[in-house]
Amino acid sequence: MHFKPINFNEKLSKFDDLWSPKVIAEMNDYQFKTVKVQGDFVWHKHEDTDEVFIVLEGALIIEFRNGEVALKAGDMFVVPKNTEHKPYAETQASILLVEPKGVVNTGDATSEQTAENDVWI
Amino acid sequence: MHFKPINFNEKLSKFDDLWSPKVIAEMNDYQFKTVKVQGDFVWHKHEDTDEVFIVLEGALIIEFRNGEVALKAGDMFVVPKNTEHKPYAETQASILLVEPKGVVNTGDATSEQTAENDVWI
Repeated sequence: MHFKPINFNEKLSKFDDLWSPKVIAEMNDYQFKTVKVQGDFVWHKHEDTDEVFIVLEGALIIEFRNGEVALKAGDMFVVPKNTEHKPYAETQASILLVEPKGVVNTGDATSEQTAENDVWI
Repeated sequence: MHFKPINFNEKLSKFDDLWSPKVIAEMNDYQFKTVKVQGDFVWHKHEDTDEVFIVLEGALIIEFRNGEVALKAGDMFVVPKNTEHKPYAETQASILLVEPKGVVNTGDATSEQTAENDVWI
């Protein structure tokens, strides 16, 4: 075992690309991923799993077909499975995602924003 | 669906008792729990699951039989399953735990620090 903390700011300093989640930890069959976001993401859903968003820096809006939630640093939200959603950030924000290993960022909606999975930093 | 963020500071303002995790969210069969800690916890292990510690405020040391890790706000650590550990905080700290629903805080070591499960705030 490595007795080394995983520091969010240190991980965030290691990349600049947007909408491209980087794995920083695994717990059982779940992954913790940091991602930087700005602008609009694609509408999508994850049919088999909930998805947790924790805002580390900045602010994030998650739009749903019937409403939206506005998150800022220190907030979290659980997007229920099989629920269409579209993240949006007016200015750059840093997010911690928690979801099962293997979940694709764009869910059922393959697009140019679909990112490679299992990219560790 | 409630379009309401879950704010860590707001949740932490709702309780003062130590070593008594409060559930703030569920994702699939996992729970996110806030807990305030100070002093020594009991040595224990969770035989069937990893356990995630995220430090929200203050500092936390997790001792292992063969080492320790020192965490501060903005750090996380994954305690592997079946690994004896003992959290310790010199001054009060606030922690976010992520673990499967049903995990008991003292694992295999029932003690006076064993807390009731599924206490939502």
